[in-house]
Amino acid sequence: MKLPLGYAYAATYAGIRQAEKDDLALIVTGLPASAAAVFTQNRVQAAPVRLCRRHLKLSRGLAGAILVNAGNANCATRTGDAVALATARAAAKLLKMPAVQVLPASTGVIGVELDAAKITRALPQLIATLSTETFDAVANAIMTTDLVPKTAFAEARLRRGTVRVAGMTKGSGMIQPNMATTLGFVMTDAAIAPAALRAMLKRGVERSYNRISVDGDTSTNDTLVLLANGASGVRPDPKELAKVEEAVTEVMESLAKAIARDGEGAAKLVTIDVTGAANDDAAARIARAIANSPLVKTAIAGSDPNWGRVLSAAGNAGVAFDPRKADIHMQGVAVCRAGLAAPFSEEELKQKLDARECQVRFAIRGQGKGSARFWTCDFTEGYIRINASYRT
Amino acid sequence: MKLPLGYAYAATYAGIRQAEKDDLALIVTGLPASAAAVFTQNRVQAAPVRLCRRHLKLSRGLAGAILVNAGNANCATRTGDAVALATARAAAKLLKMPAVQVLPASTGVIGVELDAAKITRALPQLIATLSTETFDAVANAIMTTDLVPKTAFAEARLRRGTVRVAGMTKGSGMIQPNMATTLGFVMTDAAIAPAALRAMLKRGVERSYNRISVDGDTSTNDTLVLLANGASGVRPDPKELAKVEEAVTEVMESLAKAIARDGEGAAKLVTIDVTGAANDDAAARIARAIANSPLVKTAIAGSDPNWGRVLSAAGNAGVAFDPRKADIHMQGVAVCRAGLAAPFSEEELKQKLDARECQVRFAIRGQGKGSARFWTCDFTEGYIRINASYRT
Repeated sequence: MKLPLGYAYAATYAGIRQAEKDDLALIVTGLPASAAAVFTQNRVQAAPVRLCRRHLKLSRGLAGAILVNAGNANCATRTGDAVALATARAAAKLLKMPAVQVLPASTGVIGVELDAAKITRALPQLIATLSTETFDAVANAIMTTDLVPKTAFAEARLRRGTVRVAGMTKGSGMIQPNMATTLGFVMTDAAIAPAALRAMLKRGVERSYNRISVDGDTSTNDTLVLLANGASGVRPDPKELAKVEEAVTEVMESLAKAIARDGEGAAKLVTIDVTGAANDDAAARIARAIANSPLVKTAIAGSDPNWGRVLSAAGNAGVAFDPRKADIHMQGVAVCRAGLAAPFSEEELKQKLDARECQVRFAIRGQGKGSARFWTCDFTEGYIRINASYRT
Repeated sequence: MKLPLGYAYAATYAGIRQAEKDDLALIVTGLPASAAAVFTQNRVQAAPVRLCRRHLKLSRGLAGAILVNAGNANCATRTGDAVALATARAAAKLLKMPAVQVLPASTGVIGVELDAAKITRALPQLIATLSTETFDAVANAIMTTDLVPKTAFAEARLRRGTVRVAGMTKGSGMIQPNMATTLGFVMTDAAIAPAALRAMLKRGVERSYNRISVDGDTSTNDTLVLLANGASGVRPDPKELAKVEEAVTEVMESLAKAIARDGEGAAKLVTIDVTGAANDDAAARIARAIANSPLVKTAIAGSDPNWGRVLSAAGNAGVAFDPRKADIHMQGVAVCRAGLAAPFSEEELKQKLDARECQVRFAIRGQGKGSARFWTCDFTEGYIRINASYRT
């Protein structure tokens, strides 16, 4: 699939992280793009998050570049704000655009000063290598504990032509805490006004990034940016906007699932479907409780059809339901009907749960039509190994 | 320390769990005792929880016996209510007390029918072996994945004599989910009216069981019972009640800490202190967020003084604070001052964090005097091993 028009990419190793692997990257659009972003809800926010928010406000939702580094979160640092501003300004100067059109993002360790000079020194060379071909290099440069780069693509065929969407993300998924920040950058070449883009992003996040297991934690640096530069020359009419939104949401959903699948130590992608709740919000709360339950996740790691853990996790969602009207399926097999054990072959189901993709369905009868889908991963010893020794 | 007067204990193997290890136990008081209890907040509640609640109501807070089994939660079972009632009635008949004075409790696997006959067949022999000496045997019989039995003792010297408190608990602590139910039984020989006892229990729980790390989950079976049978002949006057409450709370705090220390796979007990919050509730929310953070817990498992994770976890508590006014100490060593890295020897602190007991202190400046203490444990690969194969 072709990339959206009008964007260029570059990545390099600037010496920010110890391992010699690209850690600084740039996404540039020739035409200033409409820009929308969502950020972490954490009370502790990194300097680049604060500056990115500020720049979007001052520019009234216009952006020309995303400047991103891995290896250092630039959070809880004495020089954080100055470093974020100096590096954004340096990039803007070289790119000949207003500083407020440069959106910064960082991921990595907290509380260690980030040396602005490492970035400013690398910028000229980085900009010199900007290319429409190096999309994947940027997706690689933003990885931290990720095992695989995560990209997704879609397009929407509109009356006046095709618009394209491409996205990349990082995050090790099971939880999204200070050391496993999620960054996401989604680009389209459709022409969309900033206000419409913000609404599109907000709805899309609800169906993607806000539907992966997060155990309540959000990192100090989580940032998701959506750019629309209009380089396709196609401005969707109000009706066609829905088709573009579909493509954008498809990309975001795909990226979010990739995060869950690549969860730290994870071996399996788990899809949680909840149906029959009083409304979608109630369904989402139940799905989140199941997706966040360490006991459900360890059971799936062990291919154990332990539906009692699913029922109990649902019971902790803070949503009223009658357990005697709850059915649970795992891998399509009924394991619990009306809150009671259903007859099934444990041996057969254990084998089915050995698959790389597992489904858990929680259905309530007689409440309503509320439904929600979440994604999570299984919970293995690998997670502990990764996190008990991240910095060392 | 002497046990409270007037209680007798018995435990036996009734064939409920596969391993041949006591799984049925009885605590009996000669004089009917004032009784108070708190239960799980899970929407899915086991039959014994429902019956225990009902019996306490019908008896107006009087109890003569606690009948408890391990190995089967009697939850999400077709015959659950009937089994709980039949076994309580059978015990009451043999003990010659009203059925409503028998309080049932169960822990173990969910969704598997509990055979009442196993319990009723074992009851005569169980009752025949009731003894004031077998307190420890009951503490052993209620264990599931616990590595050690958990008991605690205290006394209060009052004007008219000494009253004693003894407690036992089970739970593998890191989280309290369907398979790691917490049961707790605390007995005193002071004479206390049911209403005063309920108030005492409620306050005590806030400072003990509600202060251990629970990741939001509560089991379908969690039950904590406090009995006061008056067998000491000492009825504390209103002023002396505070001394009894102190002893009861001391026992409950000790039991709760024992649960955290014995957390599944845990190697370390972690104490979290939060000070300087706007009020105690805000402090408790921050402490809970830190105590529940898998990243903080894995860092401590790895003896990694990773204060950024502590700051980020606090930032997710939903409590407003200025990170630039936050100080963090680990093992008494300042690691973060005013939201920034403090100078410390990482090598020395790593060694200090190898201890079996770790302290994390999170202090906010200039907000107020709100404080809270929580206990949790580190998060190791052992947790995954235990939970990925609990049933098999």
